[in-house]
Amino acid sequence: MDISSICVKSGKGFKLDPNKCDELLGHNKKDRSKIEKKLSENTAKSAELQDKLYAQNTHSVLIVLQATDAAGKDGTIKHVTSGLNPQGCHVRSFKAPSSEELDHDYLWRISRQLPQRGTIGVFNRSHYEEVIVAKVHDLPMKQQLPKDRLTKNLWKERYRQINDYEKYLHENGIVMIKIFLHLSKDEQKKRILTRIDDPAKNWKFSAGDLDERKHWDEYQRVFEEMIQNTATEYAPWYVVPADRKWFARTLVSEILLQTLRKIDPQYPSLPEDQMELLSHYREVLEND
Amino acid sequence: MDISSICVKSGKGFKLDPNKCDELLGHNKKDRSKIEKKLSENTAKSAELQDKLYAQNTHSVLIVLQATDAAGKDGTIKHVTSGLNPQGCHVRSFKAPSSEELDHDYLWRISRQLPQRGTIGVFNRSHYEEVIVAKVHDLPMKQQLPKDRLTKNLWKERYRQINDYEKYLHENGIVMIKIFLHLSKDEQKKRILTRIDDPAKNWKFSAGDLDERKHWDEYQRVFEEMIQNTATEYAPWYVVPADRKWFARTLVSEILLQTLRKIDPQYPSLPEDQMELLSHYREVLEND
Repeated sequence: MDISSICVKSGKGFKLDPNKCDELLGHNKKDRSKIEKKLSENTAKSAELQDKLYAQNTHSVLIVLQATDAAGKDGTIKHVTSGLNPQGCHVRSFKAPSSEELDHDYLWRISRQLPQRGTIGVFNRSHYEEVIVAKVHDLPMKQQLPKDRLTKNLWKERYRQINDYEKYLHENGIVMIKIFLHLSKDEQKKRILTRIDDPAKNWKFSAGDLDERKHWDEYQRVFEEMIQNTATEYAPWYVVPADRKWFARTLVSEILLQTLRKIDPQYPSLPEDQMELLSHYREVLEND
Repeated sequence: MDISSICVKSGKGFKLDPNKCDELLGHNKKDRSKIEKKLSENTAKSAELQDKLYAQNTHSVLIVLQATDAAGKDGTIKHVTSGLNPQGCHVRSFKAPSSEELDHDYLWRISRQLPQRGTIGVFNRSHYEEVIVAKVHDLPMKQQLPKDRLTKNLWKERYRQINDYEKYLHENGIVMIKIFLHLSKDEQKKRILTRIDDPAKNWKFSAGDLDERKHWDEYQRVFEEMIQNTATEYAPWYVVPADRKWFARTLVSEILLQTLRKIDPQYPSLPEDQMELLSHYREVLEND
């Protein structure tokens, strides 16, 4: 699968195009069963590479998932990571910050959860909430930031801070995959309606989702600005059309697989002096 | 006390001058008892401001201490922070990284220990070890960094990463005080000899200190480069002459006090609607 057309490495002139979803899907609609099958194939291949990643123990992979409500973050995580070795794969969900978290800088809770070398980390929401929901609802004004930092430069500063942070992560072996699940307004309506109508899905319904939906246009603008300002060579955004779950999930699994292939992890070889001794150790054991 | 002459806000052309110690001390030697008294005065004043810092809950102060062995880090911390409220003052010591810490990026263990808003944090050694001891002993080569990151740009990259990080901290309300305790080679010799000769100080002696002393010149060069590359407006270095403990301690207490004064924390006032209700609450309680 070609993922280059949804990979944004420079945000300059980037537009969040509602038609691009249909366009990409259009080519693939008739291949649904083939694409669904590809998901499990990809996961199996990724699991093999994950094993080498773990053994090599130099790089980690960090998948960041951002999206509007009902875009399918949880389902995507479930389908893309099931099949990986949970010992080397950790999912963290970031909800509204606790008061302890608010009493620290906003990257504090993020840094604590960064994946160890050799493992794959998945962030269900992330530091990007600080330039999404925080921006739509003007949250910094209500937080404990020093008053002289609450200037109109705040958002520009945050974009720069995030880019600096991600550059540091890149330079220290953390390979980021930033996924934006791009859902259409109509599809969101359908999914929320299902949550209302289907008793098995009632638990997923929250009246708050309807309130957030009122800010739809603002959210789209804020997502667009986020991608414009934080898409970089070292930490690109992937804008994944999310109106068809089967398509979105396979795409994300493909992005993970191609990223792991690019890292190209290898089982470490024993140091030469150890290699030379292997036949000796074999003898010792055989005579045991 | 004037601290401007030891404050380095731009590293350009900075030299670690072994004579500067004597120079600064020269002016102050005869005032020893006055200066010693000033230490406790400063701490008392800092404690008052610490109380307001805690109540205001927007800024935190982070004191970073770096130095050669036997320069008096522990003693300085003890004397400068005794008298502050321990509820709002936390000291962290960073030793050689554990294997769990090495399995993360080098700022991971640092970020976890950043002081909460309203508090004063003291780092006994810090992320700067990653450009001091790591540089002298070429440690990254023995760590689990991705091989393609081990280029000759590594140290330049680290300086930039640290500056980016500290800029982010500054912009999020963390006010840094970076102290370099500048000890002379002769004075180090005397102090290590005391550790050997004085049974009460034997426990402080480590043969490793003698090994490190062999690298004295290299360490001086590396300290100088560190300050040249990481002294900034938002996170300056204070180069504190450390040959006289009483002088160094008072200087550090003075730096802390002046920094707190600059933050100028205030007890928050109640919101207006609460203020109006105070007389009502008084009545309720009096009729209770």
